[in-house]
Parts: sequence; structure tokens; C-alpha cells
Amino acid sequence: MKPKKHKSIITKRRKEVSSGLESLGLKIYEQLDKGDFPSIEMPSRSTENIYYDPQVRQFILGDKKVRRKARNIRHLRPFTQLVWTAFFSHELTSQRKTSTLRDVYYSAQAYEMKFKDQQESNNIITDLETVLAFSREDFNIFPEERSAVFGDLTIEYTVPGYEGKRLNLTSHPDGVMIGPALTSAEFVKTTADKVIAIEKGGLFTRFVEEGVHKKFNAILVLTAGQAPRATRHFVRRLNRELNVPAYIFTDGDPWGMHIAMVMISGSANAAHLRELTTPDAKWSGVWATDIVNYKLPADPLDEVDIKRLYELQRDPRYKDPLWQREIKMFLKIRKKAEQEAFSRYGLTYIVDEYLPAKLEETK
Amino acid sequence: MKPKKHKSIITKRRKEVSSGLESLGLKIYEQLDKGDFPSIEMPSRSTENIYYDPQVRQFILGDKKVRRKARNIRHLRPFTQLVWTAFFSHELTSQRKTSTLRDVYYSAQAYEMKFKDQQESNNIITDLETVLAFSREDFNIFPEERSAVFGDLTIEYTVPGYEGKRLNLTSHPDGVMIGPALTSAEFVKTTADKVIAIEKGGLFTRFVEEGVHKKFNAILVLTAGQAPRATRHFVRRLNRELNVPAYIFTDGDPWGMHIAMVMISGSANAAHLRELTTPDAKWSGVWATDIVNYKLPADPLDEVDIKRLYELQRDPRYKDPLWQREIKMFLKIRKKAEQEAFSRYGLTYIVDEYLPAKLEETK
Repeated sequence: MKPKKHKSIITKRRKEVSSGLESLGLKIYEQLDKGDFPSIEMPSRSTENIYYDPQVRQFILGDKKVRRKARNIRHLRPFTQLVWTAFFSHELTSQRKTSTLRDVYYSAQAYEMKFKDQQESNNIITDLETVLAFSREDFNIFPEERSAVFGDLTIEYTVPGYEGKRLNLTSHPDGVMIGPALTSAEFVKTTADKVIAIEKGGLFTRFVEEGVHKKFNAILVLTAGQAPRATRHFVRRLNRELNVPAYIFTDGDPWGMHIAMVMISGSANAAHLRELTTPDAKWSGVWATDIVNYKLPADPLDEVDIKRLYELQRDPRYKDPLWQREIKMFLKIRKKAEQEAFSRYGLTYIVDEYLPAKLEETK
Repeated sequence: MKPKKHKSIITKRRKEVSSGLESLGLKIYEQLDKGDFPSIEMPSRSTENIYYDPQVRQFILGDKKVRRKARNIRHLRPFTQLVWTAFFSHELTSQRKTSTLRDVYYSAQAYEMKFKDQQESNNIITDLETVLAFSREDFNIFPEERSAVFGDLTIEYTVPGYEGKRLNLTSHPDGVMIGPALTSAEFVKTTADKVIAIEKGGLFTRFVEEGVHKKFNAILVLTAGQAPRATRHFVRRLNRELNVPAYIFTDGDPWGMHIAMVMISGSANAAHLRELTTPDAKWSGVWATDIVNYKLPADPLDEVDIKRLYELQRDPRYKDPLWQREIKMFLKIRKKAEQEAFSRYGLTYIVDEYLPAKLEETK
């Protein structure tokens, strides 16, 4: 299978980010040239402006706008911080250097730009995401956490020093780390016809050892708990650019469910972004009904679990019958089970029996 | 540089583990054959039998022994569990399958072996480590956490499906994951003359981007916070087999110090093991004196930090003058700083100025 539009996607996106940053700067210059106090408008991220959109299948921002005006003395500080953050993002992306949220916070001091704490600088970075509708990873601001991928996909790097170099993602059987270089790589070719995301490192290694990538033509992604944003974006790219379905396997408890849901439908925090979700991905287990049907060793739900299930029951992302059914079943059996629980039938049962059954069931 | 005894180390170790497990089984059979109740002896891990040994430069177990006897009805359960765990470890290693602590716990149920909880099965695995003086990773029981490495080292895999395949650890600029496959790989060749371990993912990526591996002939290891055991063992192997010095860079606070110390001198919990420490490794920063000398942006120590510093001050691992001096300085300035704090002088200052100065200082 040939991925769609190979070689265009990353380069195109990088140009869009760069021209987005530049036109923001230009707008400010133009306002200054006209003798106006400059201002920047963006959608409001306040709670009353966040809606779940069943069409887009994620939270989105409504029509309310906020405007940061240099004219308003209370706006002067966040306005200046936002302009600096845009400038610094442009430096990072044009020099092809990556950084972290923490790095940006400290880097500000090199420019005598003041943030009172990390939270303030994080908020301004989210403002910049909102203004330009690109995610901070597009500005080369990456999370600390790293997860991994394994499977027959050849990628081509675009990072300095590696441009044009290729790597097949089966090269390293412990998994290939999803960091800035992989996130910005082009997809060249694959024989895979599906993506399987897995919550736990031990199980990811089991899947590699048991050759799930070959037996099921799958690209395996380790989420390592709640998937880092770069990993969520990567799964979306696999799903869209390779045009293959994605299946998500988590622990059988409200937290595992929600790891899957955030990959599928995103979070309210990221309502201003569109590039982090995979709405067509399926949560394939461990379901509450699996705990019953497979007679899995289980632990009792504790109070926090139960409280969480009631929250999820009312969450608009969980309105589909499958999710509602599983929430009800968790509340009925009052039990939870981990992915490793299948080892009670032998280490390879999960790959030999459970995995094919669930892939079929959630196709 | 040619690593020592290439190709022998991993294979030899694997044989030792296997014959260790088998001779344990044999001893039990022999006792049964003679009509005796079987028993297993091991050093006691109780607190009063743990000593810091300045020669070995780590905690070790003293001469006290404990004996698990099938004759004693109270011993029957842990004795049986220990024998099963040895059996299961032999299955794992001979079939070349890996697992996790959690997996072992659930797998027991496939054999109708009872553990009342995960803690009980973890303890028995530690017993097996103590009996045989091998670590659980030698029995193919790996942690969930993964960290990474990057640099000019060619390794050769020994895991099934990859035997004889080689990978250069500069292949993937996000870093090569340290999992079961890399842990069990042979070292083939390298041009590196040092190892640099780094606490944080963002900084690891910065070091790769700025070409620290080339400029400083270094193999870069990401510890990702407290280094997983497999990573500690990996750094030890780099230090010993390649015969190159190791430097550790952490945040400038008691927790960062202790990340370095556990890599250097291990922990009391692992007093029964010898393969997880790198006693010759250096903690190269961020020191309390660096906070002063480099005028780093710093946060005040909180009460937990201060309490921890007083604990470390009395810890036998911290008796060397450098550690004592830095603890005193932390307590004097009442401040801590993160690695990213150097970004206040620009993103590359840490690589251009700080790193070479500290490598020289701690040589």
C-alpha cells in the first residue's frame, strides 16, 4: 500500500505553520503602520464556548471571540507575551530546533520576557495554538513523554542531518520512539492494513515477540498510559494517510476506556485543535463484557472508579450505545481487569485467541 | 574502540542463568530422592542484614541466612511459590519470551499457583533473585518503563527473529528504546569514548539535535527520571564493556542527585544484586554550586526537599566530600534548579558552555 500524497504532507504543513506565524506578525506591523494599537483576535476557550460537535466527533469552540488589545493596559502583558511566543516559535521552526514547554518558560528570560510561572507561559502557548489553529508540536514544542511504534512502515526523515534517510519501523524490536524526528517524518510505504494501539509496555513487547505485526499486518503503537499528544497525532496520521483502521486496546477500567476515548475524540482542553483525534478508531477492549465472557481475574472497582464511571456516563463523547453498554456493565459487575489478566490462560492466549476475536468484533 | 570480549558476554550470561535455575531444581530433586524434606537457603534481606560496603561501593547483604523448608508448614506456601517462580523463569528464558512482574502474577493462575496479591508475587521474584544472584531481567521479567539511547555504537541482537542483525544506535534520532532486545544485544563496535546520561527527554533531544554525540564522542542515555533497572544495567555494561567513563546530568535538587546516586551506587532494595550499579560514574550536575556560579533561575526548596537533603546527608552512599559539599550548599542557598534553567542563556548554552566545562571538571 502506498500512503497518500507521500512527501507532500510534512513539507506543506511546515510551510503553513511558517506562513501562519509570519502573517500574524505582518498583521501587527500593519496595525502599527496605520497608527493603531495592535490587537489579536481568537476564539474564546472559556467553558461556555466549548461544545461537543457530533459531526466532527470532538469538542470544538463556539463563535465567541476574545481580543487582546495593546490599547488596554490589562491586555498589554499577555499581548506582549503572545507576540514573543509567536516570535520564539518562528525561531524554533525556522532554525529547526525543538523544545519543551519548560524550555520555552526559561528561554523567555533570555529575552527579558517575564512569565510569573510555568502555568502562565503554558497558557500563552495555548493562546498561540488557538490563534493559528496549529498545535504546539507544529511550533516544535514537544512533550517530555515518549511512546513507541513497531511494524512494517518505511518512513523518511525530514529533520536536519537525516533528510532523505529512511528507516523501516521494524528495525528495532523494542519499538521505535515517537519523538520529534518520527513525528515529522514522511510515510513512504507499508504492507500494514491496520493500526493496533496498546496501553502497556509489557503487552506491546509481547505483541512484537509473538509477531502480531506479521500475523495481523499491523502497525503496533504503544501509548504508555495516556498517549502523549505527539502519539495521538501520529495515530491520526497513520489512520488517514495510510487509510487503515485503528484499534485501541487498554485495561478494562474507566481509566483505560478514557485513554481510548481521548485518542478517538480528544479532550475539552484541546477543543481549539483538530489534529489530535482519530474519530474512526475503535476501542476494542478490555471491555466490562470481556471480563464476564472471558472470566478474567478481576479486582473490585473502588470509589474513585465508580465516581469516574458516572462522570463518563454523562459525557457527550460517551453517548454511543457500545460505550453506554460497557459503562453499565462495569457498574453492574463492579469489577475491573488489566490487559495482563489474560495471562491466566497462558502468555500467548491474548494474541492467539482474544486479539483476533476482538478485531473481528470491532471491525 | 572494540568492546571487550564481543559476542561472549550475553551468551555466557544466558547459560549461567539457565544452569543456575537448573541446579536449583536439581538440588530439590536430590533432597527428595534422599527422602528429605527439600529446602532452599538464601541470604537474609532483612534491614539488619543490609550493609553499605565502601569497597564494592554499594549496599550488600551480610552473612545472615534464611532457609525455606518444605518441612515447616508455615514455609510450605512461599517454598512452593519460589519453586514455581523458578520453573516459570526457566520456561520464559528457554522459550525466549519476556514478561513483566504483573504478567508473572497473572500467569501463576494458569498453573493454579496462588499469590494473594501482586506484592506477594513480587517478593517471591526478589527471593529468586537472591537465591541465584541474578536480576529478574535475567529471567526475562522486564519493567514497564522504557528509556532510550543514542550514539555511535553498533549492536548485534540475540533475540529470536533478529539474531545476528545489527543496528547502529544513531539510526533513529529520537533515540533507540532500551527494552528486552537492546538489553540482550551484544556490543560490536563504537567510536565513543564516554557515556552521558541525561534525566529529561527534552534535553536528550536537544543533545541529539546539537550533535553532542559527535562533538563529544558520546553515547547519550535518557534515564527519563529515575532510570529503569534495565537502563541502569545498560549503563553499567557501556561503562565496563566499552571501558569508557560515564557522566550523569540531572536536575539540581535532592531528587536529581538521587537519580544519579542510584545509578552509581544502587539502592538498599537491590543489595542482593551486583549488576545494576556503575560505581565509577560521575554526577556532573546540576550541582547546587552550579546554581550559584551560573546564576540559574531557581525555585525555593520546599519542606520535602529539605527533609530529603537531611536524609541524604546521613546516607552512607553520600559520604564523599563532593556530595556532602553539594548537600550543604543546597541547604545554604535553599534553592533548586532544573536542567532547562540554562535556556535562560539561550537554547544551546547548555551544550556549548556548561557541558564541556562540567565534563572537564568531573573527569
